[in-house]
Amino acid sequence: MRDGDDVARLIVACPDRSGIIAALSSLLADNSANIISSDQYSTDPEGGRFFLRMEFHLEGLADRREAIEDRLAGIAGEFAMDWRIAVAGVRQRVALFASRHEHCALDLLWRWQRGELDAEIVAVVSNHPELEKHVRPFGVPYHHVPVTPEGKGGAEERELDLLAGKVDLVVLARYMQVLSNDFLERIGAPVINIHHSFLPAFAGPAPYAQAHERGVKLIGATAHYATEDLDEGPIIEQGVARVSHRDTPTELARIGRDLERVVLARAVQWHLEDRVIVDGNRTIVF
Amino acid sequence: MRDGDDVARLIVACPDRSGIIAALSSLLADNSANIISSDQYSTDPEGGRFFLRMEFHLEGLADRREAIEDRLAGIAGEFAMDWRIAVAGVRQRVALFASRHEHCALDLLWRWQRGELDAEIVAVVSNHPELEKHVRPFGVPYHHVPVTPEGKGGAEERELDLLAGKVDLVVLARYMQVLSNDFLERIGAPVINIHHSFLPAFAGPAPYAQAHERGVKLIGATAHYATEDLDEGPIIEQGVARVSHRDTPTELARIGRDLERVVLARAVQWHLEDRVIVDGNRTIVF
Amino acid sequence: MRDGDDVARLIVACPDRSGIIAALSSLLADNSANIISSDQYSTDPEGGRFFLRMEFHLEGLADRREAIEDRLAGIAGEFAMDWRIAVAGVRQRVALFASRHEHCALDLLWRWQRGELDAEIVAVVSNHPELEKHVRPFGVPYHHVPVTPEGKGGAEERELDLLAGKVDLVVLARYMQVLSNDFLERIGAPVINIHHSFLPAFAGPAPYAQAHERGVKLIGATAHYATEDLDEGPIIEQGVARVSHRDTPTELARIGRDLERVVLARAVQWHLEDRVIVDGNRTIVF
Amino acid sequence: MRDGDDVARLIVACPDRSGIIAALSSLLADNSANIISSDQYSTDPEGGRFFLRMEFHLEGLADRREAIEDRLAGIAGEFAMDWRIAVAGVRQRVALFASRHEHCALDLLWRWQRGELDAEIVAVVSNHPELEKHVRPFGVPYHHVPVTPEGKGGAEERELDLLAGKVDLVVLARYMQVLSNDFLERIGAPVINIHHSFLPAFAGPAPYAQAHERGVKLIGATAHYATEDLDEGPIIEQGVARVSHRDTPTELARIGRDLERVVLARAVQWHLEDRVIVDGNRTIVF
Repeated sequence: MRDGDDVARLIVACPDRSGIIAALSSLLADNSANIISSDQYSTDPEGGRFFLRMEFHLEGLADRREAIEDRLAGIAGEFAMDWRIAVAGVRQRVALFASRHEHCALDLLWRWQRGELDAEIVAVVSNHPELEKHVRPFGVPYHHVPVTPEGKGGAEERELDLLAGKVDLVVLARYMQVLSNDFLERIGAPVINIHHSFLPAFAGPAPYAQAHERGVKLIGATAHYATEDLDEGPIIEQGVARVSHRDTPTELARIGRDLERVVLARAVQWHLEDRVIVDGNRTIVF
Repeated sequence: MRDGDDVARLIVACPDRSGIIAALSSLLADNSANIISSDQYSTDPEGGRFFLRMEFHLEGLADRREAIEDRLAGIAGEFAMDWRIAVAGVRQRVALFASRHEHCALDLLWRWQRGELDAEIVAVVSNHPELEKHVRPFGVPYHHVPVTPEGKGGAEERELDLLAGKVDLVVLARYMQVLSNDFLERIGAPVINIHHSFLPAFAGPAPYAQAHERGVKLIGATAHYATEDLDEGPIIEQGVARVSHRDTPTELARIGRDLERVVLARAVQWHLEDRVIVDGNRTIVF
Repeated sequence: MRDGDDVARLIVACPDRSGIIAALSSLLADNSANIISSDQYSTDPEGGRFFLRMEFHLEGLADRREAIEDRLAGIAGEFAMDWRIAVAGVRQRVALFASRHEHCALDLLWRWQRGELDAEIVAVVSNHPELEKHVRPFGVPYHHVPVTPEGKGGAEERELDLLAGKVDLVVLARYMQVLSNDFLERIGAPVINIHHSFLPAFAGPAPYAQAHERGVKLIGATAHYATEDLDEGPIIEQGVARVSHRDTPTELARIGRDLERVVLARAVQWHLEDRVIVDGNRTIVF
Repeated sequence: MRDGDDVARLIVACPDRSGIIAALSSLLADNSANIISSDQYSTDPEGGRFFLRMEFHLEGLADRREAIEDRLAGIAGEFAMDWRIAVAGVRQRVALFASRHEHCALDLLWRWQRGELDAEIVAVVSNHPELEKHVRPFGVPYHHVPVTPEGKGGAEERELDLLAGKVDLVVLARYMQVLSNDFLERIGAPVINIHHSFLPAFAGPAPYAQAHERGVKLIGATAHYATEDLDEGPIIEQGVARVSHRDTPTELARIGRDLERVVLARAVQWHLEDRVIVDGNRTIVF
């Protein structure tokens, strides 16, 4: 087993042109790093934008990182690159927001306990007290922050106090409250939401009721980054399940819960592994 | 092998109450019919609407049909039933409408030739001449009916001349023209359309371009009955396929063609087997 | 909402012939029962075996059950029927057997707590102590019954003491021990197992290692009734997930866990709803 | 649109170590080639085997290929590489073998005519005459080579006469004859077969009858390279479809035909794009 402190991911975005991979892989080779995996994508090989994720192993990475970053800065200048290096062993701090529906939050906690999610879950925030007993066995602090129609701003202030600057990712695990644009700006971390429909179909509230009303033969779930436009953010992952005329909205919700758990877990895992790059309103998932 | 002339399907819709199945199955038993399959559905066992499809075998059905229908009329009066009997051996007459995209039309012709579609395909209508050479080997008449922006009404008149009263089903196999409400009323047969998206997402033109723009991770296809509200008719069947950021709209179209073929073929087959019952803007598929 | 004590399921198997449904539905209609759903299947309409599941509502069922069963016995004699009536409101008693792998057992407990499984989970039995802390919050008794290579018989005796005659269903939720034929006979209840492969591929131990070795592009999970021939019992449900050359056996196991949970939960739910009928080594799932 | 003569794929396999990508990408960058896509995989970053597929664009490739290959030979020596360069614009010559079942062969011909398969289909070989009328409209020569129980060797000799040295790929599109090991060796091209089951389940003849007998809930199809051990060759792609107790072997075959078409088409397309690398009895599909 490799030490996660010696494994890192180089994420790059820049205008596409010849020589990018040669420059980056030579830099790594000169430092005796071994490339574990490499993915790239260009929106258009002629004049498009180029994206890359290179995972590499380098013994004693901590000591050599500064030298590598110095040289990377030079290459980045030449190619007009945006770049970052994420060390695999540095676990991201994650906060889960949940409501009364516990399935997504509990599922993420299970996977985390099993070692499937390489992160530190630092808090569960809920506007209801019911989940606390379920969360306690996982040893994660539970914060009950009630939300009242008048007091929404107050709840967000309290959440920001708890979390701003202390988390690297917020996951809305069927949190049924809309977060304000102000919150999204101030939280200082990306926010992943699970919507219980196959977006862009059935955006907005009560998607299972909408799906039943329209008589669709498949229902879906969509994990996406939350943006100020509700249900409009970049999509990370989607899934569907077959339904029939026999399924009431309640049955659709039951079937959908299995979808939501799996789709959200995949999106969170990919995000934590630095596989998701946002390109405008779309995502590249390596 | 049973003779299709001795197999029939009884389709019933009525207010739900106790005794419906007893009345219908007793009628069949009294006539020594054997029920091959039976499906039922109630929108609500208390006060809802009840739907039933019963397939039965009855030797010498042709001679006994009138007597059975007489007694059925009595039961129907008692239970306020809409009903019809479709004899399996009476093949429905089907017209295919196609445009330049040949994949759906050819796929249906191929399945038909293989014996998968129990129907008589009586005509292929297209606003382009290109498909004729492909259709000829199947022995189905090909009608080239050009559509001009000014002459749309004229084209529809010609199509109605060709088909009205002579077909039991029209299939729009990627026919890229919108049919007028007048046409839908006068053609005198149900019309099934395949839309190349997971409706209600991406209704309207160029759904693959829309899907690419939105960055979805799955694309879909939807077979539905055509109604005066474009892309709004009752959905019969849907399917999806996984895509990624790498897929251009052209790639989405290629992947989608496989979906469209399969989804449309299922919908047509189910319709021909009298499995699809329209209930408002939804379908019951038995 | 209907009272479950007034809803029952009539399960019937007999030689196929004309008049079965008429006889049964007339019996129910004469008692003013309303048929909620009805499914039937015949292995061959001429000379085959007929299977039926009819769910009906009858107010005051408890008081009228004896009279109905008396008349049913008469019909059963006439048609050579095997039959039983299961009252929806009588919850089956279920025991879960687990090993160190907790995902299937916890998933069933979670669904049960959510109301998805209409049963009474009366015991969790494990040959390891680790799961106890996870099971406790659900309020279900946990029995740690160690199994040693020499003491297998002893463990089974203790399990039989705990459960024989006190459970209606045993679920092997990734219980990694083979149960003896003697146990299966004496437990007096059906046993559902989840095998972590797409049976009949990769029967036996270490299916994920076998799947990796063979280089398959999909992995599967199979829920089946346990019989004396290991991995050979009637299949209730199966599922698959896509994998690639990149997935190690450990990754396959991780992906497979999601499959196993969903496939086993479906099989157990269907069994509890009396939807699964065993026909030789195959199942009919209504 | 790029000229396919200026696009090539470099395929490499070698022991994994640091510096491989740097050496190859520098070679390409020094020649002003632009890497369009790059995929790599290592069976084990420490001491495993490394595989790579790099697609690149290089204007005037034909003139510069020799110089590049010379330098590649040097790198290959240093890293103990197996390698080859395939020019995208050089279309592979493909022969289709079919039997009475036409669906796979016709589907590949359709896709080819539509431009989905970048190849030259040079021959259809069948042991039956029936397909000729279907193949004729595609303009591909049809060779009827009858196979008799005694004359199998003679048929293979005739097929070798027709094709050996003249094709780059043979596709067994539901060709129901077993090819001898001698044929596989002498044909001088890889052979892709479609087996109508989810291998390794139901290897051998009549897989749909076997699947029905075992009572599985999903059926599958498997595209693999043919080797001397029947149904044991490296798997390229697999697919499954849901079935139920209602489906007879005939129904399974009908449902399976849709699977077979899609699974085989994907395998052939990936092979033609040089995406499939054989590693022992497994495939890497980039």
